[in-house]
Amino acid sequence: MGLPGEPLAKVDHGGSLGRARALFPNAPEPFVDLSTGINPHSYPLFEIHATAFTRLPEAAQAQELAAVAARAYRAPSAGNVVAAPGTQVLLPRVASLVAPGRALVLGPTYAEHARAARIAGHEVVETRHFSALADADVAVVVNPNNPDGRVISRAELLDLAGRLRARGGLLVVDEAFMDVGPQAESLAGDVAQGGIVVLRSFGKFFGLAGIRLGFALAHKTLAERLDAQLGPWAVSGPALDYGIRALADTGWQDGMRERLAGDAARLDALLARHGAPVTGGTSLYRFLEFEGAGSLFRTLGEHGVLLRHFADRPHALRAGLPACQEEWQRLEAALASWARTRDHSGEEPRP
Amino acid sequence: MGLPGEPLAKVDHGGSLGRARALFPNAPEPFVDLSTGINPHSYPLFEIHATAFTRLPEAAQAQELAAVAARAYRAPSAGNVVAAPGTQVLLPRVASLVAPGRALVLGPTYAEHARAARIAGHEVVETRHFSALADADVAVVVNPNNPDGRVISRAELLDLAGRLRARGGLLVVDEAFMDVGPQAESLAGDVAQGGIVVLRSFGKFFGLAGIRLGFALAHKTLAERLDAQLGPWAVSGPALDYGIRALADTGWQDGMRERLAGDAARLDALLARHGAPVTGGTSLYRFLEFEGAGSLFRTLGEHGVLLRHFADRPHALRAGLPACQEEWQRLEAALASWARTRDHSGEEPRP
Repeated sequence: MGLPGEPLAKVDHGGSLGRARALFPNAPEPFVDLSTGINPHSYPLFEIHATAFTRLPEAAQAQELAAVAARAYRAPSAGNVVAAPGTQVLLPRVASLVAPGRALVLGPTYAEHARAARIAGHEVVETRHFSALADADVAVVVNPNNPDGRVISRAELLDLAGRLRARGGLLVVDEAFMDVGPQAESLAGDVAQGGIVVLRSFGKFFGLAGIRLGFALAHKTLAERLDAQLGPWAVSGPALDYGIRALADTGWQDGMRERLAGDAARLDALLARHGAPVTGGTSLYRFLEFEGAGSLFRTLGEHGVLLRHFADRPHALRAGLPACQEEWQRLEAALASWARTRDHSGEEPRP
Repeated sequence: MGLPGEPLAKVDHGGSLGRARALFPNAPEPFVDLSTGINPHSYPLFEIHATAFTRLPEAAQAQELAAVAARAYRAPSAGNVVAAPGTQVLLPRVASLVAPGRALVLGPTYAEHARAARIAGHEVVETRHFSALADADVAVVVNPNNPDGRVISRAELLDLAGRLRARGGLLVVDEAFMDVGPQAESLAGDVAQGGIVVLRSFGKFFGLAGIRLGFALAHKTLAERLDAQLGPWAVSGPALDYGIRALADTGWQDGMRERLAGDAARLDALLARHGAPVTGGTSLYRFLEFEGAGSLFRTLGEHGVLLRHFADRPHALRAGLPACQEEWQRLEAALASWARTRDHSGEEPRP
């Protein structure tokens, strides 16, 4: 099963300060990095015991993490949970659970899904029509969607999963942002039906993207196959420590969901006040699509405030949450500057 | 390319205190864990900046790690280096670089190679004859070998690689313990020839197995294919920080090599004094193969000193290095106890 020989183009992502500096070399530093959907209020850092760094991770601790994750995500059991060093490395493995065929990705969405399905040998088509997914060997839905926040209901997804399963197909639901989404639409509790893989990201909601931790939830047979691909010790000692503590801390999670919802509403109001209309997103990022997006991205970038833009969607932007009062103020000043430029150029703000 | 449906048996490894407790429930704790080949004198721990935990790893930092690793391992260039969260997760990906065929593993050796090659769809045969490897589609040599320390010369390996390459095959050389092996026999500098993948482990020599960091060194085309499989952010922020600092610290490395050689000699002398003959290994672990191995393993285990035994080789044992004076003393006391039992039972120590 040799891989395709042609180079697989790397996808451009947010979150790189190196790239920000190259784009805006004269911007004041530090950058206010709103280019990701990562929670700027991380789970409290704590002292990690030296053995988490020095010893091989213990199987018992990995089992504890799976159990805690199953409860946090409401998966049927720990046996349905595969822990990995981030969901990213799982994507080609999940796509490889089905023999090469036709992968349909509901888009526009996170670009790595298409790349991963191609690596797994699938012919990949991005479709904007949910109903088209039933023809796939692998169907991929990001729910809530990144970047626009669109949500597909659990009922619709289960119906799709049933159709795919009947033909030996697989439904992949990437719930990377479901921690701040409508929990009732999660398929985490349904994976034992088979033919469904739910992906959950740890680093985004808990603000710990650097430790690399993510999960696949699936029928035990699929979970075992994914586990075998990763082998023992896939998750680092520090990631085990943080995962076990943070996923069990429902108090922090509930409080954080409220705080992020408040921050998101504040961001919407601030953007609207300056003529930048939010049309979707989640509490971890807001989505804008309007004709002034290009000038907004540039002006904010020159002020050291970095949004996420999309090479193939010039009118779309995604904005993460400022981390602190200083960042809110820098964002507000940059927005005011952009609004002035726009007013002078006679450009009309659009609703 | 669906994976085989049958469950893939998990391999039993050293380094699990949970398993040790199950085997020796009455042993005094803490265990003196000599069941791994991980350096007990870890690279000095240092304070990691919070952003290593909270932010996505930066591409620029990953590139810096690749450059530092290329220098440390004497690979041709950073473009020949693939960094991963441990070499373990790379094994099935490396075996998948070649279409399913015949994988030959020079054994007995680290069992995960056979498992990974099977996952990649190969028919796997373990052979004790180096000359047999030339018939493989994928040939795997652990060099120096784990557990017995056997070394194959660079000249022999290059000759084998040439034969395999001529037929589209691949030579995988696992140099997990080459940091304490004969550097002149490393194939790290030869990977640009193609048809060779060299695996290097970070956690063993640097005593940081918990952070999960390892490398594949290969021709750029193969390196790009492996990189594409892992995707961005494969290596965690803390692993990047430790890797960049420790791999550049040649002073620490040189001093540690000397220290480990001294420890290994001390361990050999101690074992020999009690009638347990060391017949091979590396400075990170010693190999014993004699008829008393089973009783030695049991008696030491009951004293809370854990060696590595091998389910399919009842007369073989591997012993890692004690970490401190107290561990040396507990090992010595346990060995003395074993020698007394053996003398009473009239069993003859074998050379």
